[in-house]
Amino acid sequence: MTIDVIELAKNLINRESVTPHDAGCQKLMIDLLDEQGFEHEIMDFEDTQNFWAIRQGATEEPVFVFAGHTDVVPAGNLDDWHTPPFEATIKDGYLYGRGAADMKGSLAAMVAATERFVTDYPDHKGSIAYLITSDEEGPFINGTVRVVEELMKRNQRFDYSVVGEPSSTAVLGDVIKNGRRGSLTGFLKILGTQGHVAYPHLADNAIHKSYKALNALAEEHWDDGNEFFPPTSFQIAIENAGTATNVIPGEKYVEFNFRYSTESTADGLKKRVTDILDSFDLDYQLDWKLNGEPFLTPEGELLTAAKNAVRENCNIEAEALTSGGTSDGRFIAKTGAEVVEIGPVNKTIHKINECVKIDELKTLVDVYYSVLKHLLAKE
Amino acid sequence: MTIDVIELAKNLINRESVTPHDAGCQKLMIDLLDEQGFEHEIMDFEDTQNFWAIRQGATEEPVFVFAGHTDVVPAGNLDDWHTPPFEATIKDGYLYGRGAADMKGSLAAMVAATERFVTDYPDHKGSIAYLITSDEEGPFINGTVRVVEELMKRNQRFDYSVVGEPSSTAVLGDVIKNGRRGSLTGFLKILGTQGHVAYPHLADNAIHKSYKALNALAEEHWDDGNEFFPPTSFQIAIENAGTATNVIPGEKYVEFNFRYSTESTADGLKKRVTDILDSFDLDYQLDWKLNGEPFLTPEGELLTAAKNAVRENCNIEAEALTSGGTSDGRFIAKTGAEVVEIGPVNKTIHKINECVKIDELKTLVDVYYSVLKHLLAKE
Repeated sequence: MTIDVIELAKNLINRESVTPHDAGCQKLMIDLLDEQGFEHEIMDFEDTQNFWAIRQGATEEPVFVFAGHTDVVPAGNLDDWHTPPFEATIKDGYLYGRGAADMKGSLAAMVAATERFVTDYPDHKGSIAYLITSDEEGPFINGTVRVVEELMKRNQRFDYSVVGEPSSTAVLGDVIKNGRRGSLTGFLKILGTQGHVAYPHLADNAIHKSYKALNALAEEHWDDGNEFFPPTSFQIAIENAGTATNVIPGEKYVEFNFRYSTESTADGLKKRVTDILDSFDLDYQLDWKLNGEPFLTPEGELLTAAKNAVRENCNIEAEALTSGGTSDGRFIAKTGAEVVEIGPVNKTIHKINECVKIDELKTLVDVYYSVLKHLLAKE
Repeated sequence: MTIDVIELAKNLINRESVTPHDAGCQKLMIDLLDEQGFEHEIMDFEDTQNFWAIRQGATEEPVFVFAGHTDVVPAGNLDDWHTPPFEATIKDGYLYGRGAADMKGSLAAMVAATERFVTDYPDHKGSIAYLITSDEEGPFINGTVRVVEELMKRNQRFDYSVVGEPSSTAVLGDVIKNGRRGSLTGFLKILGTQGHVAYPHLADNAIHKSYKALNALAEEHWDDGNEFFPPTSFQIAIENAGTATNVIPGEKYVEFNFRYSTESTADGLKKRVTDILDSFDLDYQLDWKLNGEPFLTPEGELLTAAKNAVRENCNIEAEALTSGGTSDGRFIAKTGAEVVEIGPVNKTIHKINECVKIDELKTLVDVYYSVLKHLLAKE
């Protein structure tokens, strides 16, 4: 049989797999991969479903990994959708439904491309693998990160990985992500002394104390970025202080986030923040969460193969960018693999009426097929 | 009969009159005042109960007004009270219960002092009046402020007013309040443009924009105060901005409060705030609430009578202060009356185990009696 990418994408969208639920999506993929000679392994952790599947060709290496997630973000307000979010619907050349672009369309295209490739090149060199999770849109604790940890313990080799994240902005293939900025969050509590507004001399206003130090952080120039990364950006995202108009607040709570280039490190940024706060003689508590370290896949075999695949199938030159949010690519990059993200146009992701263009989803199968061919077709 | 101040205070405390409820307290007072030749008028507005009662002596003027409130703040955590808050209990020389000090003890003392005074001086000069509300601890919208408005429309004269607020700090009579600072609250929304932290160039962080302007407000010197008032104080009490660590906030909400001296005016302060904000080229919305204008009763007949009454009965010299929160005194001051606040020690007000010393409550009857005598006993 030949897999119809549109039918497979529809079958995946119809399964309501809001993070951390998988709702049977992975079973659907596993069954199809098993038919193509893959050996799969369920690697669930806590509430998260994951699988790893690998098909060895004529040689064990190189190892090429398709990576992605079956979970989706919630639908939002159902009344705002033109079609039910979990009933895939074709309309005017587009496939609508939650996950159509992020990233059930890509998952269907990977499986369809794999089937075509192993049919055309049953003795391909190296191995093709899948690393699929159900918690990419959530806390990313029990998904890709843990599967990668486990596989690295077993010395599983990773050479190339294509993540199916929707990297394109206007038309399919215009952007390939070849890295991502790091993301580091700080949780800051500035301490003063609570009191009544009528007796300010008995209190120490935590809000008033905070301004100069926080302004210094907001105005700091962290680095210049580099050829691949924009300058590191610092944003204060949350501020909360105070309970009532007649109470001088004794605490101010602040959350801030760095998106940082490879010119900075998490430890370096932490030290600079602490130095700035200390220079203002503040009493504070500060905790950190490192959401993801930055990664970069410079020009090499994978990026070249990906750009060629786009040129051949989309008739455009892909731009390699590191902009945007975090993705699970950062966890796979830790294995030492070259990692790129190629997927549909991301205009509607996480929004109502999420959709993917039917023609582009079919072309994405061709792009993935070409990438496999460039890297694994036997010479 | 002779009114027992302790029994009357207990009867008032046992009525659970949390703002705006009166729970029968005013009826209790009215019945006792009617017996002493007062004419009363119920002046309820919306959910608030108020009454005005007046007894004319040999002349109509001067008019002396006892003012106060029958409502109390909620009890808070009942488990933290040693005795039930709405069951007046005598223990170790103290009367315990919600409102014992703020201000059911004072109300009982006023009525007891009035009874003794009109018995001793049935032909006193001038008039004695009562202005009592049930919303002083709440929004102060339908209480004293409206009764005063109504009485001023009728050209009711006010010469002196003693408010029963707990003015004392260590022992009864150590402090008489002869004025209060004004209170003005600002509700500020600073506007930016929301966005994702990964794309800071598309957003305009309302938090970052706020710091310089708010710091300028926090550092502004508003006035020097004067002989009777400390300098005007500005406190930012509440800040709220942001929804999630990966979202750049498009709005920041701020509440701030002025406690201001008679050296500044509400309009003047509003203009200076607006000028400062405008100098930082901010996009903002600003609303105001004038909680109370400042008032001051300088040395004069009432303050002299009050100080003498304290000296004669408490054997200490009272200090005249304008510190502390707002009170309904500010509304009565608008009539042009001299206004002072004399009442029990305020250490336990609004707290658990609120109490008043039995001996001091009995002495408070003597103090109020002496004030009446100094001002209204026929020469």
